[in-house]
Formats: sequence, C-alpha cells, structure tokens
Amino acid sequence: MASPVESRRPELRKDSVTNRWVIFSPARAKRPSDFQSKSPAPSSSDPPQTCPFCIGQEHHCAPEIFRFPPQNSDWKVRVIQNLYPALSRDKDLDSSASLCSDSLVWGCLLDGYGFHDVIIESPVHSVHLSDLIPEDVAQVLLAYKKRILQLAGDDSIKYVQVFKNHGASAGASMTHSHSQMVGLPVIPPSVSTRLDSMKQYFNQTGKCSICDVPIKDLLVDESVHFISVVPYAASFPFELWIVPRDHVSHFHELDQEKAVDLGGLLKVTLMKMSLQLNKPPFNFMIHTSPLQASESDSAYSHWFLQIVPQLSGVGGFELGTGCYINPVFPEDAAKIMREVNIS
Amino acid sequence: MASPVESRRPELRKDSVTNRWVIFSPARAKRPSDFQSKSPAPSSSDPPQTCPFCIGQEHHCAPEIFRFPPQNSDWKVRVIQNLYPALSRDKDLDSSASLCSDSLVWGCLLDGYGFHDVIIESPVHSVHLSDLIPEDVAQVLLAYKKRILQLAGDDSIKYVQVFKNHGASAGASMTHSHSQMVGLPVIPPSVSTRLDSMKQYFNQTGKCSICDVPIKDLLVDESVHFISVVPYAASFPFELWIVPRDHVSHFHELDQEKAVDLGGLLKVTLMKMSLQLNKPPFNFMIHTSPLQASESDSAYSHWFLQIVPQLSGVGGFELGTGCYINPVFPEDAAKIMREVNIS
Ligand SMILES: Nc1ncnc2c1ncn2[C@@H]1O[C@H](COP(=O)(O)OP(=O)(O)O[C@H]2O[C@H](CO)[C@@H](O)[C@H](O)[C@H]2O)[C@@H](O)[C@H]1O
Ligand SMILES: Nc1ncnc2c1ncn2[C@@H]1O[C@H](COP(=O)(O)OP(=O)(O)O[C@H]2O[C@H](CO)[C@@H](O)[C@H](O)[C@H]2O)[C@@H](O)[C@H]1O
Repeated sequence: MASPVESRRPELRKDSVTNRWVIFSPARAKRPSDFQSKSPAPSSSDPPQTCPFCIGQEHHCAPEIFRFPPQNSDWKVRVIQNLYPALSRDKDLDSSASLCSDSLVWGCLLDGYGFHDVIIESPVHSVHLSDLIPEDVAQVLLAYKKRILQLAGDDSIKYVQVFKNHGASAGASMTHSHSQMVGLPVIPPSVSTRLDSMKQYFNQTGKCSICDVPIKDLLVDESVHFISVVPYAASFPFELWIVPRDHVSHFHELDQEKAVDLGGLLKVTLMKMSLQLNKPPFNFMIHTSPLQASESDSAYSHWFLQIVPQLSGVGGFELGTGCYINPVFPEDAAKIMREVNIS
Repeated sequence: MASPVESRRPELRKDSVTNRWVIFSPARAKRPSDFQSKSPAPSSSDPPQTCPFCIGQEHHCAPEIFRFPPQNSDWKVRVIQNLYPALSRDKDLDSSASLCSDSLVWGCLLDGYGFHDVIIESPVHSVHLSDLIPEDVAQVLLAYKKRILQLAGDDSIKYVQVFKNHGASAGASMTHSHSQMVGLPVIPPSVSTRLDSMKQYFNQTGKCSICDVPIKDLLVDESVHFISVVPYAASFPFELWIVPRDHVSHFHELDQEKAVDLGGLLKVTLMKMSLQLNKPPFNFMIHTSPLQASESDSAYSHWFLQIVPQLSGVGGFELGTGCYINPVFPEDAAKIMREVNIS
C-alpha cells in the first residue's frame, strides 16, 4: 500500500493584515496529475492580427482618458475606458439606487455605477512591464496615481482597485501588457476585513501592522523607499509584498522619486519571478485605503502591492472555506527568491 | 472609435448568506480574447495507464478508511486517506500548539493537525457522479455522512469541508470521479462570515435566511425534500444551490430516504449543467455548520450544497477585493437552467 510522503509537518498560519488562515503543506507539492499538462501560454512577441492596445490602433479602443506624454502620438502609457466595463460610468438618475435592509431584507441591491479603465503600459505589443526601464515603470505607476486622483473627485466612488493580470491562467484576455483599475461605489469585503484586522492590531500594540511586517527570514529585496517580503502567512507559493518603508495610507501619495524607486524594485521582482518560476502567469494588486478614509484611520492603514504568481489553480476547498493551501513555506520561498541572480 | 456595447445596466447585489458584493455586468460576457483557446479537458473514458482510484488498483492508494458495501471486493464507494494530505492525521504531542496573540503578536500559528480524505465515487474510471442512479449517488452522500460522524468524535476538529473538483480548470488533478473532505482544527473564514451573516438576518427578521431563500424567478427544480435555486447574488455564472426544504443545521443529519432524494436532484442538476454548458469543469461544496455548534446556533444555520461551473477564471480584481464579477444575471441563469430538457 502506498504510504504518505515524508515532509515537514504542516502548519496553519494567520497574519494580522489579511486575518485569514492558510495551511502550509509541503506534501501537497508532490501530488501527481493525470490531466494532460496545459499548453504553455502563447508567446506575446507573436501579436494577434490587430491588437487594439498597439500604437497606431487607438481607433479600435474605447475612448482615451489621458496619455503620457500628453497630446503626443508617440505615447508611452495610455489610460482608456474599458470597452466591456464591469460598471457603468453614466449615473442612472432614475435608478431606485440602494435597496438594503429596509425594503429588500434578504439582499442588498445597488445600481452599478462606477469606473472601469485599462492602462496600456507600453505602445509595443511584445514589451512587458518588466522590460521597461525603472523610469518607464514609474510612468505607469504615476498614471494609476493620476487616474485615482480624478476618481477621488467623485463622492460616489469609495474605493479604487488597481490590478494587473498577466497570462491566461492569471485571467488575462489580452496579451498586450496592460493593467486595470475599477472605481467602486462600495468598500469591497476583502478591504473591510483587512482594515478591521489592521485596526485591531493597532489597538492591541499601538503600531501599524505593515510598519511591523516580519522580515526575519522573509525579506527578499530592499530599495531606498521600499522592501519586498514574502508575507508570513502567504496564501500562494512565492507570493510577494512590496511595502513602502514610510507609513503612508494611500498609494496615490506616491511622488516622482518614489515612483522611480518602486519602478526599479517592481521590475527586479518581476524579473526574478520570471527567471525562477519560468515566466509564470501572475497578478498584482495595489492594496490601498478607501478614498474617504478618516484622519484616525490613517494611523493603522498602510498601502502595499501584492504580487501573486499563478502556479496552481484553486479548487473546491478554497472556494468553500476561503482558506488557502500553500505547499511552500514562506521562509523557503524568500530564500529562493533572494538567491535568484538577475545580473 | 469603438464604443461600449449596449446591455442591461450593471447591478451590485449582496445576499444575507455570503454577505459579499457581486457585480452583475452582462457587457463583460462579450469581451474578446487574443489568447489561444484552451484545449478541451481530456475525455475520462480514456483512463491513464494505472489509475490508483480504479477497482483492482487499491494497493496504489493510501490506506482505506471504509468502503460500501463493507468487506466487499466489489465495492461501490471507497473512502481513503489522501496520499498527499494538506494536514497531518498524527497529533504532534511536542508541538508548541497554538501561538496566537500572546507570544507572536503579528500572526497566529497552529500545528497542522487534521484529516484529509478522498471519496472514490465509483469503481469504474469512466463513470461520472451524474452517470450513477440516484441510489448510488446517495451512497456517496452517505459515505460523506459516515466519515463526518467519525471526525465529529475528535474534539480538535472544528469543521469538515466536503468538496468536489471535476475537470482540470476546477482544480482536479485526478480524472477518476472523486470528492474530498478536510477536517479542520479551525473554523474557516468563509464559514464564520456566513454564520455571522445568517445570524444577523435571524436577529433582524426572526427567520432563517436559507428557509427564506428567494425563489421568485430563481427556482430551477424541486424534489420531495429539496429545491435548487440560483442564488440572488450568485458569485459565478450558473452557480446553483441545492437547499433542503426542512430547517436542518448539519449535512450529516441526512437520512437514507433524503439521501436518495438529494441524489436524484444532484444527478439531474449535474446533467442539466453538462448539457447546457457543454460539460463544464465544476466544483461543489457542502456548506454545513461547525461540528460543535451550540443549540442556539441551530436556529439560524441551515446547510446547503453549492455547485459552481467553472466557465471563466478569476483575475486580480477578485483576488484584491473579494468581490466577483458575474456576467449572467441570476434570473436569466435560472430561466435557462429551467428550460434544459434532459429526458
Ligand atoms: N478595444 C478595447 N478597448 C478597450 N478595452 C478593451 C478592448 N478590448 C478589450 N478590452 C478590455 O481589456 C481588458 C483586458 O483585461 P485582462 O486581459 O486583464 O482581463 P479581463 O478583464 O478580460 O478578465 C480577467 O480579469 C477580470 C477581473 O479580475 C476577471 O473578472 C476575469 O475573470 C478575468 O478573466 C478586458 O477587461 C476587456 O474588456
Ligand atoms: N494514490 C493515491 N492515494 C490517495 N490519494 C491520492 C493518490 N493519488 C493522488 N491522491 C490525491 O487525490 C486527490 C485528487 O484531488 P483533486 O483532483 O480533486 O484535486 P487536488 O486535491 O489535487 O487539488 C485541487 O484541489 C485543492 C483543494 O481545493 C486545491 O488546493 C488545488 O489547488 C487544486 O488543484 C489529490 O488531493 C491527491 O493528493
């Protein structure tokens, strides 16, 4: 009879930011699969017939919001409307608006007002974010900032989620390097949970949980203004957080100098991931504070950027419990990432 | 310039069970993809060389826990240990056990004690759960029940998650029809959130949120003891819940007669899904109450089974916010599912 594989004992961990149990189980990494392996992602140096995100194809896109440099046909970054938006940027004045606990007790209903934009990170189809020089990555980050500041002018928008999907298994439907931004009329559940958890830590310790992020055995890289670490209770193998050293609540407080510094660290991190994990599909998400956060919230809220390589999908266990199973201990992932040599 | 596609206006909805905002946005369904389409899942009538889950291959499996019928080489269902378990079924007596807020303020650490089993649903490789007669589906359900009752004897186990992964994009690594069960030493986050939400509804209305589940326009099928509905704020297109008509907290209260009735409805539901959605990969999860739930909790807790066809993956937005984007309105999904003719 087959007997279980010998490995380090599993552990459950939870951190004071996401407040979610994660199961660490190295034995899981060894399980076989009798499905045929998925075909590798098509190389994006092989552009489709007409990619609307390529320079010269601007007329195939939904309306532009702005570009860098402005009014220049030789643009580096474009922020455009998403042609298939999750939310509608027109206010519905007739809408019965929010129907919560009063009239419709079983559920809540809200009109789908909000913004859904695409940030085209490069004019050239085959260029990835990690191919750009730090100054050009900074342009992308500053485009996020500029657009967030515009959305902050609309009182109905409570939270802006910036995210990037790279590769089909990370959800991307377009191969040309891009990211997205959704301005939401509600504070999403994971954001509320995170803020509650950070607040609780602050009340217990008097400190910000992100300023206090454990780095022993978990630090990967450092720049002047940022560090990269594997989180203590990483939900995914090789998940990484890029954390500003200074206590800052909102991503959109980023200035030019810090943007270049972050651009450099982000570039290095993505290059290391690509080299070590064989060009994995990945997502990144900017975790910031709600737009209308109060002065007192700023004591415990501290933005960071989360990068998740998509190495294995999830299944019914994660869908049912909200608990993740991670076969790689964070200390081991950090050690491996520290040792990658990209020079 | 390309202009946005005309569709029904997006809506945000939240229900009183999962308490999670979902964005309904039909426009999203129309977006293009320039990735090559994924190859279809390999047909499982084409078994791999040696599948350890097939009859006659029992010696390639981790130890058996029990089988139906007992002591019979001609078994119908086997419950076995998972050979690559997420948790360890041996208690670690030396373990420093739970390290929460006291010594390790930033995070919590718990020894990975628990159970991870596999339920082999048929002796034959090519037979899917929906191919079985209702009485044989019932055997699988009663195997879950029997194993849950065994785990309930261990005070350290707080919650049992039963789930099924079917097809590679639903996370399955094995093609032979099976499901899994994890006995956890903690109550997982989605379960706590669900119970809190159901309790709140009960406190506000004096009623159980699942007894009250909206069926207008959302009902799909009915049997003697169960109904199937599309939930009001479904996170995924064509997500379905099978709900017991009687107010029952724990799945493991299921008796033989109800198991056959549920077996029939589950079979019909999976067949309809397969026909209408072209044999999609899917997950199902049994949402039950914690093992040591108190008498007072039973007033608002009511188990149900959630089925999720995996039609599109998720991306950075969902990872970042915990909010889902569903391109299909629940009323539309229910109408389509009602109209599928499987006879
Ligand atoms: N001509 C054009 N002009 C303007 N915009 C155009 C366009 N053609 C396409 N688009 C938009 O470009 C975006 C490209 O986005 P991604 O490739 O990152 O993933 P997508 O949003 O499709 O879905 C992934 O991310 C979302 C959010 O995480 C998940 O819901 C989903 O399951 C996952 O596949 C799409 O949203 C699309 O609507
Ligand atoms: N000879 C043998 N004897 C006993 N057991 C054997 C065995 N050979 C294989 N197994 C076990 O059989 C199980 C088959 O399970 P599934 O195909 O449903 O998905 P898996 O658990 O691999 O991962 C999916 O589900 C989990 C939980 O949702 C996700 O974490 C993950 O990402 C997703 O791919 C595996 O857990 C494997 O360990």
